[in-house]
Amino acid sequence: MKLVTIQDLAQIVKKHGFENFMSDLVSYLKNDFVRWNEFDKSPRYAAHVPGGVLELMPTADKQYFTYKYVNGHPGNPLEGKQTIVATGQMSEVKYGFPILLSEMTALTGFRTAATTMIATEYMARKDSSTLALIGTGAQSEFQALAHRMVRPIKTIRYFDIDPLAMDKFERNLGDKGFNLVRCTSAEEACNGADIITVCTACKKHAVVIENSWVKPGVHINGLGGDCPGKTELDKAILFRGKVIVEYTEQSMVEGDIQQITPEEVKQVLHAELWELISGSKVGREEDSEVTIYDSVGFAIEDFSALRLTHDLAHKYGIGHDIDMIPPINDPKNLISVLDLHK
Amino acid sequence: MKLVTIQDLAQIVKKHGFENFMSDLVSYLKNDFVRWNEFDKSPRYAAHVPGGVLELMPTADKQYFTYKYVNGHPGNPLEGKQTIVATGQMSEVKYGFPILLSEMTALTGFRTAATTMIATEYMARKDSSTLALIGTGAQSEFQALAHRMVRPIKTIRYFDIDPLAMDKFERNLGDKGFNLVRCTSAEEACNGADIITVCTACKKHAVVIENSWVKPGVHINGLGGDCPGKTELDKAILFRGKVIVEYTEQSMVEGDIQQITPEEVKQVLHAELWELISGSKVGREEDSEVTIYDSVGFAIEDFSALRLTHDLAHKYGIGHDIDMIPPINDPKNLISVLDLHK
Repeated sequence: MKLVTIQDLAQIVKKHGFENFMSDLVSYLKNDFVRWNEFDKSPRYAAHVPGGVLELMPTADKQYFTYKYVNGHPGNPLEGKQTIVATGQMSEVKYGFPILLSEMTALTGFRTAATTMIATEYMARKDSSTLALIGTGAQSEFQALAHRMVRPIKTIRYFDIDPLAMDKFERNLGDKGFNLVRCTSAEEACNGADIITVCTACKKHAVVIENSWVKPGVHINGLGGDCPGKTELDKAILFRGKVIVEYTEQSMVEGDIQQITPEEVKQVLHAELWELISGSKVGREEDSEVTIYDSVGFAIEDFSALRLTHDLAHKYGIGHDIDMIPPINDPKNLISVLDLHK
Repeated sequence: MKLVTIQDLAQIVKKHGFENFMSDLVSYLKNDFVRWNEFDKSPRYAAHVPGGVLELMPTADKQYFTYKYVNGHPGNPLEGKQTIVATGQMSEVKYGFPILLSEMTALTGFRTAATTMIATEYMARKDSSTLALIGTGAQSEFQALAHRMVRPIKTIRYFDIDPLAMDKFERNLGDKGFNLVRCTSAEEACNGADIITVCTACKKHAVVIENSWVKPGVHINGLGGDCPGKTELDKAILFRGKVIVEYTEQSMVEGDIQQITPEEVKQVLHAELWELISGSKVGREEDSEVTIYDSVGFAIEDFSALRLTHDLAHKYGIGHDIDMIPPINDPKNLISVLDLHK
């Protein structure tokens, strides 16, 4: 089987090109999401621990089974460590053998941005040119670059409670042709924005975005309300317009819609993302609508990311072959790998 | 983080010694099982597919989170492939970062045998000298060698529907000092046995062992009744004596006790394995009792196996260091691993 480390993935992305990687990932995601009913779906497994959460996100279609391991520890950066680290594996369903083991920390950045890109494509106004980005952590540059691939984003208005995170954001994107407007509050960042994308890590019921800041016509990507007890949007925002989610069952537990009752969810929920891709539901219809993508991250997104990584690792011959499957001719002679006779 | 491949594990076992590895694993298992209430426990995640099953088995204590990926495809050997292949990962709970990625196919062989060894230690008659082994597949040699570490096993009476699997068993254990008695049926193998250990892979409700073959005083290790619709024991055997399981909630779905009602389970279930280790329940009390260990395999067993592998990999300096955690000083600067400026 193939092992793809961080350096391997960086090589793959360099060889393929960042934007090509992102747009191919969007294609893989769309191909997988429209086959929604072919997938084995379940809410993620989560072990909640004092400092955070440890999760497994499995899914399968008829050909592949994938899962991602990912943690979420909001206090990690205080000790110089990343909030999330992820790894994942892909197996063939037919025999059950693993074929790819991959880093998924960077891949999670990619797939979250690529999925947001799809939501933005269907939900944001076509002429959206100003993006408000609240939270300039690990995910922010992926988001900034992805948004520009589907909307004519000229200006990014950004805010983070950590000034160093804003400095870093500027260093990374200073030469990418954006008009970067550093703000002193989330409210200031939202002022005049066509799209508001929120991605913070604080594990509590926060009101990062207040209802009064959201003007008619705005599209919101709410990315950081993604586990029980962790929300970002003023609850009133959810009643402002069409809400879409990835997978209702999981989102009611983990998303910003955990703040409202099941009856209220029925009232505000417009579609699952795959229904926009398949065309069975439409996204934005009026320029004055408010639209909300309440994202939590779903296993099929990791499935698509692993599928693309697998294909590109083979295409470019990048990655390491590792012996994780016993190299034995007789499948019942497992103990022979231990050379007991020697 | 550390990667332990099949060859790495084989080296570790060679360096440490097969019996030392097995007995240390028994110690780790006992240390973990007695802390039963400290673990985050849940039944495994299983995706049932036409040819088999794909599973994730997570668990955690306050220090480590582990999971195993394992498939079970009974038809694989017909195509020269192993029935099960497994991999696993261990992370530190404090920060959520993975520290070990390991092969677990051979480790599953070890931990299943080591757990059976514990059940046998508490449940089998002290003077047990004849072992009946039904199924001489990948697990059989691990079992044979493990049983001898806790009981004075002289004779092994064995049967498999595949004669080649019996040939292989003889080649592997011919020089290990056992009196090997090849049988032409499971019934013949059980004749005169003190312990009956059954480990077959057929995914259906089979009656591999009939009630009338089980004489007073016998201990049964039922290892292959381990998923819904897959059982091995004549249901009547479950009413013959003390039944023990690893984790009742999971075993009622996956074990041989899936054949009986919850009320009947209450009636026959004597203890969970950890209660024998902690001393809160006793195992065998009379030489004439029939005792039954209905095993399905539980996540804590993989936890112990990964913990031991981690400790020995570091002790002997075996395994590969791989970059699966982004090597960045600023935890929020994830995108820097992609070198977008170059």
